[in-house]
Amino acid sequence: MEQLNISKNNDTICAISTPAGVGGIAVIRVSGKDAFNIVGKCWKGKDLQQVPSHTVHLGKIIDQKQEILDEVVATVYKAPNTFTGEDVIEISCHGSIWIQNQIINTLITNGCRSAEGGEFTRRAFMNGKIDLSQAEAIADVIASSSKASHRIAISQMRGGFSKELSSLREQLLTFVSLIELELDFSEEEVEFANREKLIALATKIKNVIGKLANSFATGNAIKNGFPVAIVGETNVGKSTLLNRLLHDDKALVSDIKGTTRDVIEDTIQLGGLTFRFIDTAGIRETSDTIENMGIERTYKKLDEASIVLWMIDVTQDITNINNIAKDILPHAEDKHLLVVLNKIDKQGATKVEEIKQIIKGLSPAIDIIEISAKKDIGVEQLEETLIKTANVSEIDSNAVVITNARHYDALCHAEEAITRALGGLEQQISGDFISQDIRECLHYIGEITGEITTHEILGNIFAKFCVGK
Amino acid sequence: MEQLNISKNNDTICAISTPAGVGGIAVIRVSGKDAFNIVGKCWKGKDLQQVPSHTVHLGKIIDQKQEILDEVVATVYKAPNTFTGEDVIEISCHGSIWIQNQIINTLITNGCRSAEGGEFTRRAFMNGKIDLSQAEAIADVIASSSKASHRIAISQMRGGFSKELSSLREQLLTFVSLIELELDFSEEEVEFANREKLIALATKIKNVIGKLANSFATGNAIKNGFPVAIVGETNVGKSTLLNRLLHDDKALVSDIKGTTRDVIEDTIQLGGLTFRFIDTAGIRETSDTIENMGIERTYKKLDEASIVLWMIDVTQDITNINNIAKDILPHAEDKHLLVVLNKIDKQGATKVEEIKQIIKGLSPAIDIIEISAKKDIGVEQLEETLIKTANVSEIDSNAVVITNARHYDALCHAEEAITRALGGLEQQISGDFISQDIRECLHYIGEITGEITTHEILGNIFAKFCVGK
Repeated sequence: MEQLNISKNNDTICAISTPAGVGGIAVIRVSGKDAFNIVGKCWKGKDLQQVPSHTVHLGKIIDQKQEILDEVVATVYKAPNTFTGEDVIEISCHGSIWIQNQIINTLITNGCRSAEGGEFTRRAFMNGKIDLSQAEAIADVIASSSKASHRIAISQMRGGFSKELSSLREQLLTFVSLIELELDFSEEEVEFANREKLIALATKIKNVIGKLANSFATGNAIKNGFPVAIVGETNVGKSTLLNRLLHDDKALVSDIKGTTRDVIEDTIQLGGLTFRFIDTAGIRETSDTIENMGIERTYKKLDEASIVLWMIDVTQDITNINNIAKDILPHAEDKHLLVVLNKIDKQGATKVEEIKQIIKGLSPAIDIIEISAKKDIGVEQLEETLIKTANVSEIDSNAVVITNARHYDALCHAEEAITRALGGLEQQISGDFISQDIRECLHYIGEITGEITTHEILGNIFAKFCVGK
Repeated sequence: MEQLNISKNNDTICAISTPAGVGGIAVIRVSGKDAFNIVGKCWKGKDLQQVPSHTVHLGKIIDQKQEILDEVVATVYKAPNTFTGEDVIEISCHGSIWIQNQIINTLITNGCRSAEGGEFTRRAFMNGKIDLSQAEAIADVIASSSKASHRIAISQMRGGFSKELSSLREQLLTFVSLIELELDFSEEEVEFANREKLIALATKIKNVIGKLANSFATGNAIKNGFPVAIVGETNVGKSTLLNRLLHDDKALVSDIKGTTRDVIEDTIQLGGLTFRFIDTAGIRETSDTIENMGIERTYKKLDEASIVLWMIDVTQDITNINNIAKDILPHAEDKHLLVVLNKIDKQGATKVEEIKQIIKGLSPAIDIIEISAKKDIGVEQLEETLIKTANVSEIDSNAVVITNARHYDALCHAEEAITRALGGLEQQISGDFISQDIRECLHYIGEITGEITTHEILGNIFAKFCVGK
């Protein structure tokens, strides 16, 4: 693996690490074995090579013509106790775009290479400062926009997941070494490892892997938002409700560049969780349009949701409810179904009660919430119900939750492999095959932490980073 | 003056100092006497109060619930050797908007106040770390987008202008003290100050002030761009030329937020200078529309320009040239007039020569440049002529150049006052009046450096700053 990147790790890189644009200050990061030499060429101030690590120094950056580009503060980090493991100098300059670009240009003229996206983190990984899942968590930390997704990313960045995986790895290595020891002495028909104990160990490992893989459903929802499909006829008040929900919490994720705004309709933060509201407008204008392409598309969207929010306008004709139910219910079987009765302020109690009876007749377990989106009645209760339905409170804040599809894939493969190994043990097949399955399981776990990796995987991971990190 | 801001200077402020948005890292600045206490409440790591000044420390920021918000690097600056003169802690966190906001919220909950625009610099001024013209220069440094404007701002920030003013101030104080000493002994009719020497001194001071005030024309052009009016009939190739000039230099100022894009048409950087191309389209569709409102507006714009670029399409009818000249020349008298003959590739030499003769007939001194904007012929020569015409090379890089309208106003007032004092000296009027004029001159110079200031002036200056600086 080192071979793959030896040339890339040998030079000194620089980049603007702060957000793009004009600000009070900006920070330019330089990392690599020539950091001191290169910065030294355009630095007027104390000799940075002589100052202690982790200290800051006022000085000036000068260009080739010895003209002062800016008065700056340089922070010196000496290898190996730095983020990248290399010598690092951070230059804190005035936040004009012109100055930022001039300093970068000067550094490049002096021998720096412009860093690629995520290259500082990549170097931290290559130099063993962090493992791959921690590197990925750094990108997640930067991208996180809700309390819950942030908490998981921070925990992963700090090595929560890595610890879990390293424990799994150790157990698997013990396992495989026992099996392989037997193979070495296979002619003597010894059995170093008690088969029952091995089966117990394999079962335990399988359970841990399975639990981690299963956490992906929740983890993915926490990271990307809980998908909520709002179904119902047009004009039931969907937009009013969404606006109401948005109004109550200013932390609209779609304010932030790079979120999924263009793909999904609305993202709302409630109780530190992100909910993605999926547009299924026009699920059923009339009861006989079932064959429509549009309805099919709506069903597909329904299937993506984990929560289905069926909105009914209580002032409208109720004869259609049963027909709509026939369409919705088969698609909501494995989901949380919430029925929201809207415009409750405009309708007498009798009709509302009648509607509630129809719903309860469909299934007594369905949650029914009465609201007036316009008058802000019952909306808070709906919010609480959504948070309760997302049901992440059961997740221990110390529990490891998978949020990364790459990790999920690897864990699924690892689970398959350990399941095969377990089956082999139970059927008492040859240690050769069992060993091979455990090695495969180890391979997939190593892929997560980066002990086993390819240039392509690394490229994919770090391409998602912003430059400067 | 201190009284005005004593309450504001007494608390501890915080703000995000890096540009708004998502990046690898962001820097949050905390300044004030409680900086250590407030940050200490949400900091997990070494006791920052115990570490030496100008050192950086890895740690964690925790929220009220002791949950980790982020792993950060804190830079400790202990008063008085800090930018603001107060205790300063800079928190370098991961650059997610969510994290940035959470840390700011936590700091505010712990007792910080959210800083106003420019409040850190304002404190630096209030605590005597910099004078007012240096504070203003910091905003200019951040806003500067060309080499020349940046160089002036950097020089002013580093105190070039302040030094000049402080020397003026000293000379004025000597002057006034001599005059006032005489007044104290007025009954004895002594003359402490030789009148001739005083007149020489006043003349010298007047010249320095006048030179500074005069530098504003150039300084303002360097800061805001040299105004170039392009005049000529429609379809002479103005847009093609502008695009060609833009193409040759990617550093388009209008890429940058907050520049004058909406007011002016195009800003182009040539040779480290900014040129503002003022739209005067349709100066003269036909020769008899002189009375039009549109033409009047064009003349007004012409008057704002320091360079007039008269474009002629050499393939068109030449009979109109003399008529257009009659409109343009009276408005270009005190300006640099460049005649650009476009589409030179599409016209035979005879007609081009004929046009050149007409132009030279108007005034032999007019610069004529032959180009083809489309074929990129002669454009480089035009650029060189524009740079030469701007004529800033004569400005010594160490010379003080005024770029700030506030300073210009104050200098004009100061010049008036010293001129009155000089007149008084020459007419041998009473020392009372002369002293009063010199005091007035001192007052206006003090306004520039901030020795004499009002709440309103300070408010105006710092309102232009970005938050976090």
